[in-house]
Amino acid sequence: MDEWHNMQAAYSDVDDRPHEECGVFGIYGHEQAVALTYYGLVALQHRGQEAAGITSTDGSHMFSHKGLGLLTDVFKSGELEQLKGHAAIGHVRYSTAGSNTIQNAQPIALSTHARNFAIAHNGNLVNARWLRIQLEQEGSLFQTTADTEVIAHLIAKAGVDDLTEAVRLAANRIEGGFAFLILSDDELIALRDPLGLRPMVLGKLGEAYIVASESCALETVGATLLRDIEPGELVRITREGFTSMRFAERRQRRMCTFEHVYFARPDSDVDGWNVHSVRKRLGKLLAERHPADGDIVIGVPDSSVSAAAGYAEASRLPLEMGLIKNKYIARTFIQPSQALRDTGVRLKLNAVRSIVEGKRVVLIDDSIVRGTTSRRIVRLLRGAGATQVHVRISSPPYVSPCHYGIDTAKEDELIAAQHSIEEIRNLIEADSLEFLTVDELMAGFNFAPGDPVPFCNACFTRRYPTELVDQGLNEEIEPIHIGG
Amino acid sequence: MDEWHNMQAAYSDVDDRPHEECGVFGIYGHEQAVALTYYGLVALQHRGQEAAGITSTDGSHMFSHKGLGLLTDVFKSGELEQLKGHAAIGHVRYSTAGSNTIQNAQPIALSTHARNFAIAHNGNLVNARWLRIQLEQEGSLFQTTADTEVIAHLIAKAGVDDLTEAVRLAANRIEGGFAFLILSDDELIALRDPLGLRPMVLGKLGEAYIVASESCALETVGATLLRDIEPGELVRITREGFTSMRFAERRQRRMCTFEHVYFARPDSDVDGWNVHSVRKRLGKLLAERHPADGDIVIGVPDSSVSAAAGYAEASRLPLEMGLIKNKYIARTFIQPSQALRDTGVRLKLNAVRSIVEGKRVVLIDDSIVRGTTSRRIVRLLRGAGATQVHVRISSPPYVSPCHYGIDTAKEDELIAAQHSIEEIRNLIEADSLEFLTVDELMAGFNFAPGDPVPFCNACFTRRYPTELVDQGLNEEIEPIHIGG
Amino acid sequence: MDEWHNMQAAYSDVDDRPHEECGVFGIYGHEQAVALTYYGLVALQHRGQEAAGITSTDGSHMFSHKGLGLLTDVFKSGELEQLKGHAAIGHVRYSTAGSNTIQNAQPIALSTHARNFAIAHNGNLVNARWLRIQLEQEGSLFQTTADTEVIAHLIAKAGVDDLTEAVRLAANRIEGGFAFLILSDDELIALRDPLGLRPMVLGKLGEAYIVASESCALETVGATLLRDIEPGELVRITREGFTSMRFAERRQRRMCTFEHVYFARPDSDVDGWNVHSVRKRLGKLLAERHPADGDIVIGVPDSSVSAAAGYAEASRLPLEMGLIKNKYIARTFIQPSQALRDTGVRLKLNAVRSIVEGKRVVLIDDSIVRGTTSRRIVRLLRGAGATQVHVRISSPPYVSPCHYGIDTAKEDELIAAQHSIEEIRNLIEADSLEFLTVDELMAGFNFAPGDPVPFCNACFTRRYPTELVDQGLNEEIEPIHIGG
Amino acid sequence: MDEWHNMQAAYSDVDDRPHEECGVFGIYGHEQAVALTYYGLVALQHRGQEAAGITSTDGSHMFSHKGLGLLTDVFKSGELEQLKGHAAIGHVRYSTAGSNTIQNAQPIALSTHARNFAIAHNGNLVNARWLRIQLEQEGSLFQTTADTEVIAHLIAKAGVDDLTEAVRLAANRIEGGFAFLILSDDELIALRDPLGLRPMVLGKLGEAYIVASESCALETVGATLLRDIEPGELVRITREGFTSMRFAERRQRRMCTFEHVYFARPDSDVDGWNVHSVRKRLGKLLAERHPADGDIVIGVPDSSVSAAAGYAEASRLPLEMGLIKNKYIARTFIQPSQALRDTGVRLKLNAVRSIVEGKRVVLIDDSIVRGTTSRRIVRLLRGAGATQVHVRISSPPYVSPCHYGIDTAKEDELIAAQHSIEEIRNLIEADSLEFLTVDELMAGFNFAPGDPVPFCNACFTRRYPTELVDQGLNEEIEPIHIGG
Repeated sequence: MDEWHNMQAAYSDVDDRPHEECGVFGIYGHEQAVALTYYGLVALQHRGQEAAGITSTDGSHMFSHKGLGLLTDVFKSGELEQLKGHAAIGHVRYSTAGSNTIQNAQPIALSTHARNFAIAHNGNLVNARWLRIQLEQEGSLFQTTADTEVIAHLIAKAGVDDLTEAVRLAANRIEGGFAFLILSDDELIALRDPLGLRPMVLGKLGEAYIVASESCALETVGATLLRDIEPGELVRITREGFTSMRFAERRQRRMCTFEHVYFARPDSDVDGWNVHSVRKRLGKLLAERHPADGDIVIGVPDSSVSAAAGYAEASRLPLEMGLIKNKYIARTFIQPSQALRDTGVRLKLNAVRSIVEGKRVVLIDDSIVRGTTSRRIVRLLRGAGATQVHVRISSPPYVSPCHYGIDTAKEDELIAAQHSIEEIRNLIEADSLEFLTVDELMAGFNFAPGDPVPFCNACFTRRYPTELVDQGLNEEIEPIHIGG
Repeated sequence: MDEWHNMQAAYSDVDDRPHEECGVFGIYGHEQAVALTYYGLVALQHRGQEAAGITSTDGSHMFSHKGLGLLTDVFKSGELEQLKGHAAIGHVRYSTAGSNTIQNAQPIALSTHARNFAIAHNGNLVNARWLRIQLEQEGSLFQTTADTEVIAHLIAKAGVDDLTEAVRLAANRIEGGFAFLILSDDELIALRDPLGLRPMVLGKLGEAYIVASESCALETVGATLLRDIEPGELVRITREGFTSMRFAERRQRRMCTFEHVYFARPDSDVDGWNVHSVRKRLGKLLAERHPADGDIVIGVPDSSVSAAAGYAEASRLPLEMGLIKNKYIARTFIQPSQALRDTGVRLKLNAVRSIVEGKRVVLIDDSIVRGTTSRRIVRLLRGAGATQVHVRISSPPYVSPCHYGIDTAKEDELIAAQHSIEEIRNLIEADSLEFLTVDELMAGFNFAPGDPVPFCNACFTRRYPTELVDQGLNEEIEPIHIGG
Repeated sequence: MDEWHNMQAAYSDVDDRPHEECGVFGIYGHEQAVALTYYGLVALQHRGQEAAGITSTDGSHMFSHKGLGLLTDVFKSGELEQLKGHAAIGHVRYSTAGSNTIQNAQPIALSTHARNFAIAHNGNLVNARWLRIQLEQEGSLFQTTADTEVIAHLIAKAGVDDLTEAVRLAANRIEGGFAFLILSDDELIALRDPLGLRPMVLGKLGEAYIVASESCALETVGATLLRDIEPGELVRITREGFTSMRFAERRQRRMCTFEHVYFARPDSDVDGWNVHSVRKRLGKLLAERHPADGDIVIGVPDSSVSAAAGYAEASRLPLEMGLIKNKYIARTFIQPSQALRDTGVRLKLNAVRSIVEGKRVVLIDDSIVRGTTSRRIVRLLRGAGATQVHVRISSPPYVSPCHYGIDTAKEDELIAAQHSIEEIRNLIEADSLEFLTVDELMAGFNFAPGDPVPFCNACFTRRYPTELVDQGLNEEIEPIHIGG
Repeated sequence: MDEWHNMQAAYSDVDDRPHEECGVFGIYGHEQAVALTYYGLVALQHRGQEAAGITSTDGSHMFSHKGLGLLTDVFKSGELEQLKGHAAIGHVRYSTAGSNTIQNAQPIALSTHARNFAIAHNGNLVNARWLRIQLEQEGSLFQTTADTEVIAHLIAKAGVDDLTEAVRLAANRIEGGFAFLILSDDELIALRDPLGLRPMVLGKLGEAYIVASESCALETVGATLLRDIEPGELVRITREGFTSMRFAERRQRRMCTFEHVYFARPDSDVDGWNVHSVRKRLGKLLAERHPADGDIVIGVPDSSVSAAAGYAEASRLPLEMGLIKNKYIARTFIQPSQALRDTGVRLKLNAVRSIVEGKRVVLIDDSIVRGTTSRRIVRLLRGAGATQVHVRISSPPYVSPCHYGIDTAKEDELIAAQHSIEEIRNLIEADSLEFLTVDELMAGFNFAPGDPVPFCNACFTRRYPTELVDQGLNEEIEPIHIGG
């Protein structure tokens, strides 16, 4: 098969993991608002490494800086000092290669007849294209390809001067997974979609309120976690303090399971569950339901280390660092040519011969998307002397693309959408392969089979909790290709 | 006077010359369209050094790159190669410090329901603020502070699908000095304001058509100058060829005299007059009408060299390089501290003692705006031993700000708006001072006193050829301060 | 105490870990020599992040590029392509702040009357200052402050034309820990000090020979580990092949224990021992000899993860990720001001409340140098709710500075040089504290108490295996401060 | 001829002018020493644009920063502030492409057993290679390919501790054109070669002494020109003040004529003559001795503008700006491909049609080296409509390479070394061509034919004032190619 021919390369640069989407951080009422936003974003950097930005306000002026790359690329000497004020919002962004432009970096700063405001958004709308067509037909001009600009236009066109009311009206027209922050001269507004697909937490540092994608950002800046923002909740923070309202009627909660399985930082608490603990529990469940005749347990670094520790503990097998990840391979890294790949250059991951040699390895990973990475790792282990490789995955087969903000592959690229488990095992060249079932996954959160669950498992079940409005629409106009 | 106290500094970094505004270049129908646009912009770099950009199209995709700084800063290795296609538009930009942001760099790329397009603009509208208020009230969102975005919104809201028709409708709503280019997938549109305030020429290179702010850009790329774009003319170039239409009724031509006096490159032909020749003629007129008892003639480099040559020729006085300009002082130059200025550090201009010493100098300059530069130069010459300094200006006293695209000072900063010629002479410490009158200036173009002239001389006469619509409006909302 | 007052800061930027010194990589006889050197250095990046460089030869010309920062900073687009040839040596460098200059980056390229050559060095000489004084008195000119230049001068002054012989003579005049590579047009020479203080391995890739500081670099480029370079061995690789000689008489081997405890990458085999396995064994020993009444085991990431796994396995306590390290904090990271540190900003490490809360934590670390980091971590854990923190260190108290290439603190900064274990426990605020003894450490390598051991344990025992020649000398001349 | 085939390109990137060599600036005794050195170097930037650097001292520490590019590239924000002290030396450098490396940038900072010192050098030695061979055989190690390092080694090996004495001894061993500065903790030493081939002036600013390559640097920093440094003079400035000595016996002065003809800035006084005035006088002589039937006079910008003004004045022909130079084409400029050159892209120079058309042009240039530039300009003028082009050169035919610091072409590339004046006229396609004779050139300095002249005219006469020691030596060892 041609698809597989490409996989023959012993080394693949295309990491076939689901990509982290975006992270947002906002703070109101602290004289160090900008610096804290910077450090909060540093804690969220795992959610996006392609662009970053911060917008602040001192109550009468707004300030903004953004750029491509890591926070350390975007904020060097001096830029941070130029952003002043007691309130700020910030954003880190992942994007597909084609659209990683400075134009699409966030926060987006805008002005309407009523005011200036800035917006920073995490998530994906399922009716963005449909709304954009409506807006363009009414004469709206688009300068980016981001969903965020659709939300901004809806706010500008809401026809009311009160910003909170305009945001509420706009939020009722969009559908999908979203969690966004809006900053104006005198208020910070935060919002989470009615299903709770994308996470957002509320914290406090002295008198200041903070909202962020994950609780690890609160810990990092020394703030206390108050609670998760509720699905359908709109929070508004001003000089007068904190107010909360519902912008949408109560619906069944559908939090993203994949935040726990792969995305979120292990030290975050997402919707009440600690991520590391969930992963370790999934590893234990995996050991109980899908034992393997192995000598050692190895987790794929870094995301599967928790699950591997759980598996090892439950199976009483030793946990070993049989795979070492090179942490110095950044975006600017020069990739090896094909000729060198053929000589076996292996940069990201290395298998440790003296650990692996002669051993039956139980390899723990969190998911299989395209299958190419799994195959490469199995081969690495065998090359280092593993006699058997038993692959155990701490989630169910990933069969359907996410439409709510997680950019994985298209359906025809998802190996589990095309192949049975046995076929996958064969393709990734493992001695055995087991996944968790959706029920087992839910058991990791202490739900019994049949329980109603507050999670979106669409990527495992193909049952999407919303209509997919844009699905039927023609491809949008090709965006202008903009370099940095 | 306090204002003058500041002028005591022997060295002033604030160049009080009128600042060049912008330059545009567009080409349709050449396989090297992007490279030629780059080289054409290099020839127009004197019109703006703060930002630059190019947008191109290959007929189905559009490509864009822009950034802050000189063309050599913005286009280093690789960026140019990524812009593909047979048609392109480009822009070099001057801007006041506060708004020199990447956001405001041009061309601006946009998308509407009908299409993608990009716009590059030179000039200033007198009703931009008024229009912006209307547009914002209708729900238009602004992401920049540039007039250009106002034009773009008018096009998007024109309510017709045909781009040329939409541009025509938009052009009829704006007032002021403007010359802009629009590029879509299948056409290049160029436009010049009905009064012809801002210049634009049409050229040909093989089968390709070119439009540019000045003819020197045509020469540079090896193209032939066909003619100036007419005031009120809209030119459209497509695969089918070249078409021209009037978008506004015929009005009295009002071309900007200051392009000839100071802005344009001496090798350009602007509206039929060669710039160097006009300047030299003005220098001769100055010698005839305002002779001086001098030993040598010195022109302020670079812009007054032509006028000085004319003066020397007509007066039979020797032309000398008594002032040397340092050409290596760029935007990134580290300016001296006040302590050093007091020691007499003089970086931009140096007076040559062995030329000047013991001489009565006739100093030729093109204009006096704030007066600080003139005073500095007179002092430099005296410091180098000049016994007398007779200042001769090759234009009339500059008494009123331009509203059509030339960014000089506000009226209360214009020395000639506040003071008589004798007072100015005293303030700049010259032995004598003479200006051309408006009639003499027009004589440089061969118009007799009383002739109807096709020029805007508003900066010398305070008679503006348009209503100044935005004058009465309150200050707009403070823009968001955006760093690069 | 004042010294301790400074430690009050909840956050300390001064990482008090011993700093990795340098890494070297050399290859002869491969058409992709330069690219392989780059990837080999990537695998050694943990040994030095401050500067990097590569020198290559095509047999008649030599090529060199180096710079400050990570490999990804130094080699961007194009530099690698300009280095040609079938042989190359490379270097990654750690340095103290004051001397991190481009001048001191390596390899250093030199020319003598006989030839051009380049040198890349890992280690520290104990008689460099003494030798430098001699050389300078004979008229040698120094352009850097590096030991490497001393070695180069000795080679140049050896008085023989044959490079290998000159290197051999030079190597006999230096004393200390060293492992260096020399490249000329037609040979690659590699050398390891007579005690084997600094590591170096030999590998093969096809017909090409490779020498490198650690075996992980061999794995990374797909090469096979042949063996360690012997203490006192000089290896020479030319077109004719590989030759080996002793440049110094056989002495007792004294390999650096700290490479195993902290420095080397866990997947490396150093002098026959796999680093991860040694660390895990030390963790087990620690559990056996120094058990703790804890609920969970937490290792300080990343270097103590192996030891923690061993401790957990042996103690049957669960291994948890209770501390999360932020991997996005690079050299260019903007550090928080004191005001922010006081609010509790914690960027590098975060303790996970939902794991730690209410638990008695056994904290595994590899060493305590100044004590500040340990105290910070104990406080972090308590702040996150740990009821007890029992610190277990997988090495003996670090009481004496290394003179052979590991840059830790001066003796008066070493907490264990100044305080008893109970005092340290008190200062770092732990509930209990235990170290391994030197005998226990040696047991990790399977040596019984009393066995002669082939290790240098001077940092734990103050018994240095060489004379410390430079100790008595006055401070050298202040080097010229050179910016990049 | 093949050589001429290459010249067919209407546009040539290879500027065939002699290249400026280097500029040096030193100051002792001013609290703003570093900033003044920066501004002084800005005034000398025309002498070298490839690298720049400054070394300073505060009496006990030395500080240095250098880099590739213009001063504005090398000194951005912050570097200047890190250089402290009351004394400094600086350097701007031209170099041939192959050796433009950071390694070769100056000042070079060195340490010997006696002290640290830094050296900055302008000129070229005729026995550098010979000396280097001696030094290398004695065991000296070279890290650069610059003459400067030879001088440094001679100082280090002089065998005396007193720096001035060591410099004096070193200076007596070198031969050629040189002017260099040495800075140590407590003194600034300046030196000019015994023939005075390279220029150097002495100035005063308050209590501080300044030495610089040209007097324009003194004017720029507000200092007063005291006098030229004498050929063979060594000047030493310390806290105690200024002392002067001869390091070499008195010889016949041989100042470089080409500094006046082309190199120096027109506002400089070099050895008592103002450069602009000399050039203007040469232009007048040219008009008197070599009149032309022309309508207008055009000088090649920028270096021939003075001579053209003299020619116009003496011939009573109008001086016109018929050639415009684009001042925005810097080192980083993207050069056009051959395909574009063929379309006639002309970036550096543009001929002004409305000035030139139908005119008989007298074109003034300062020299002809390879002839390619002249031919290109003649063609440009004809292309713009000139009916005749009469070329007049304000110096004699350039027939022999300079060995004293001016990097022109090799002898076989010099058109006047290979061809008669009539042949050259034909090759550059001029209607007529005349040069000054050497006697006429000397008349520009008021020397009558037969007068003994204090100038080196070797490039016009092939009579070198020194032995050319290195001429017979074999090519040196290929230097290591070092990237930035």
